[in-house]
Amino acid sequence: MSKFLVNKYKALEPYTPGEQPRERKYLKLNTNESPFPPSEKAIALAAEEAKRLMLYSDPECKELSAKMAETLGVKTENVILTNGSDEVLNFAFMAYCDENTPAVFPDITYGFYKVFAAVNALPYKEIPLLSDFSMPTDALLLEKGTLFIANPNAPTGLLLPLSEIERLVASDPSRIVVVDEAYIDFGGESAVSLISKYDNLLVTGTFSKSRSMAGARLGFGVGSPALIADLHRIRYSTNPYNVNRMTAAAGIGALSDPEYFEENCKKIIEARAYAVEALASLGFTMTDSKANFLFARHEKIGGAELYAALREKGVLVRHFGAERIKDYNRITVGSMAEMQTLVKLIKEILEEKL
Amino acid sequence: MSKFLVNKYKALEPYTPGEQPRERKYLKLNTNESPFPPSEKAIALAAEEAKRLMLYSDPECKELSAKMAETLGVKTENVILTNGSDEVLNFAFMAYCDENTPAVFPDITYGFYKVFAAVNALPYKEIPLLSDFSMPTDALLLEKGTLFIANPNAPTGLLLPLSEIERLVASDPSRIVVVDEAYIDFGGESAVSLISKYDNLLVTGTFSKSRSMAGARLGFGVGSPALIADLHRIRYSTNPYNVNRMTAAAGIGALSDPEYFEENCKKIIEARAYAVEALASLGFTMTDSKANFLFARHEKIGGAELYAALREKGVLVRHFGAERIKDYNRITVGSMAEMQTLVKLIKEILEEKL
Repeated sequence: MSKFLVNKYKALEPYTPGEQPRERKYLKLNTNESPFPPSEKAIALAAEEAKRLMLYSDPECKELSAKMAETLGVKTENVILTNGSDEVLNFAFMAYCDENTPAVFPDITYGFYKVFAAVNALPYKEIPLLSDFSMPTDALLLEKGTLFIANPNAPTGLLLPLSEIERLVASDPSRIVVVDEAYIDFGGESAVSLISKYDNLLVTGTFSKSRSMAGARLGFGVGSPALIADLHRIRYSTNPYNVNRMTAAAGIGALSDPEYFEENCKKIIEARAYAVEALASLGFTMTDSKANFLFARHEKIGGAELYAALREKGVLVRHFGAERIKDYNRITVGSMAEMQTLVKLIKEILEEKL
Repeated sequence: MSKFLVNKYKALEPYTPGEQPRERKYLKLNTNESPFPPSEKAIALAAEEAKRLMLYSDPECKELSAKMAETLGVKTENVILTNGSDEVLNFAFMAYCDENTPAVFPDITYGFYKVFAAVNALPYKEIPLLSDFSMPTDALLLEKGTLFIANPNAPTGLLLPLSEIERLVASDPSRIVVVDEAYIDFGGESAVSLISKYDNLLVTGTFSKSRSMAGARLGFGVGSPALIADLHRIRYSTNPYNVNRMTAAAGIGALSDPEYFEENCKKIIEARAYAVEALASLGFTMTDSKANFLFARHEKIGGAELYAALREKGVLVRHFGAERIKDYNRITVGSMAEMQTLVKLIKEILEEKL
C-alpha cells in the first residue's frame, strides 16, 4: 500500500480468489470450473474474431444480447452483458445500495458480496443461515435493504425453490432482490421467468460454470428494462467496452450449441450423484447440493486437515476458515473420472489418518 | 432509469463512445482504431487459448505482466494489467482522489475523466488549456489535487515534452501525477523512464491503438510497487479476473512481435505527415498532433458541417460539441490509402460547399 492511497481503501480487505498454483499439476477442484472444454462453436467464433481485434467491441453488445435474450425467452432490453458476473454484481451494489439502503445477504454466501459493499463504502447486514445452512427466508422478509441471494447458495450448494424466491420478491415491491444464479444450471429453476412480473427483481448469471467459459469472463444480468438501463448507466460510466470481441463471439457460439451445454450439465449432475453416494459411504456428511460442487465434512477429520491431505496428493479443493464452515470443504464436481480419482484418494487419506 | 436507482447516480452523465454504426459500411476514422490487424502472433496465441476457456484466467496475470515489464524495462511489480486502460484510469481515480484531493485535469482532454470523477462522487477541477490548446503547465503546478494528463492530449494530439512531465511530477512529491499515454507510441517519449525515480508517478497505456487490439481490451498501469499494490487492491475488490485468457495471450503475442508494432507506428506517422500536408494545402488548420489522429478545422466550413458532409460520403470522424473545440473534428489517422480517400472526399466537399 502506498502513502497516497485514500483513507477509505486502507482497511479494505480484497476478495481472495481460489489458488491458481503453478508449481505442479493439480487436479483442480477448487474454483468450480467445468471439466469440459467450451463448445466447438465458441472456440471457432472466438478464434475467428481474434483477426478483428483492431476494432473496438460493440459497446451495446447487440448480437450477443439478442442471442442471450432469445435463449432466456426475454427481450434484448432485459439483458446486460458484463466482464464476468462479478462486474454486474458490483454494478448492482452501486446502483441499489446506499447509506439508507444496506446490502443484505446471508452470513455464509459468496464471499465477494461483503467486498463489493466495502469497496463502494456501502453498509451491509449479514443474516445468519439457519443451523442446517438453509436460507433464513423469514428473517430476510423483514429486511428493508437490497437482498443479494446466491441461488443455489455458495459454498453450501443449497437451492431455494422458485416459490420462495418469488415470496421474497413479491413481499415488498419497494425492495430490490438480486438473485445470483451462477450455479442454477446444475439443478435449479431460474427466476428469469419472474422478471416480466416484478420490476424489483434482478437475476445475474455467468458463462463461467455450465458453459465452460470461466477464462472468457462473461456474465449477465436480467431484469426490467428500467433496471437494465440503470446498470448500463453505470457501465457507460466505468467501462463501456467491457466485453471484448472474442468473448462476445464465444458467447454467441456457446448459446448456439444448446445440446452440448445440456449434455455437460447432465454429466456434472451424474458425477455429482456418484460422488455424493461414494463420499457418504466413506462417512462424509454433505448438504444437498444443486450446484457443481459439494460441501462436505467428515466427523473424524477436520476441514483444514482434509484440505491439506488432498493438496499433498495433488488435489486442490477450497477450504474456508470461517467458524461456521471450517469443518467443511467445497469440492468442485468435475468429470466422472475426476470424481473417481477424488474418491480413491480420499479413501487413501482416511485409511492413512484413521 | 428505474425508481430504485440510488440518488447519487441519478444525475450521472455517462461517457458517450464514438459511434459504431451498423446500417452501412463506413470508413471509420472516429475512434482512433488501428487500420492494421493485430500481430499474427497475437491472433495465433489468442485462438489457441480459446480452447482453454473452461479455466479461469490467472488473476495475477503473471506471464503477461512479466512480458510487459520486460518490454518496458521495469519489474513485474511495477505493472498492472486491466480490461482496457479505462479500467486502470478508473482505479486511479478511486485510489488517489477523495473529498480532500480533487482530480485535476485540463478542460479539453479525454472526456472520460470527468465521468470517472462523477461515478465515484469525487470532486474535480478543470484547468483551461492555453489558447493554442497547449498544456497549462504553470497553472497545473499550483494544484494540490491528483493530476490526470493525457500525453499526447486528446483530442488535440499535442505532446508535452518529457521534461515538462518531470517538472510536474518533481515539483510536489506529495501529489500523484497520472500520465495517460494511450497515444504515446505515435511520436512521444514515455514517462515510464521516470517511474524508478518518482514514487508519485503513474503511467497508463493501452494495446488499443498502436498494437491494434482495441477489441481485446487490454490496458496497463506502470508505477512504483506501492502504487501498483494500491491498484491491485482495488482490482481484487471489484474484478480479480479482469483480463480474460484470450486477451492475455494476445497481449503476449503482440509484445513478442516488436518489429510489426514498430512498422505499424511508422506507417501511421507517415500517413499522418501526408494527411497533414494535404489538408493544410486545402486550407485546414491543425494542431501539431503526435497521436494517431488529427485535430483539424477549416475557416470556411464549420466542424459539425464537415462532420455531417463526411458522414454523408461514408466517412465517420469525431466531432465534439464543446464550445472551445466545436469548429474542429478529430480524424483518426488510418492507412495511407484511407488518408488518400479522406483527402479526396474532403476536396469534393469543399468544392461542393464553397
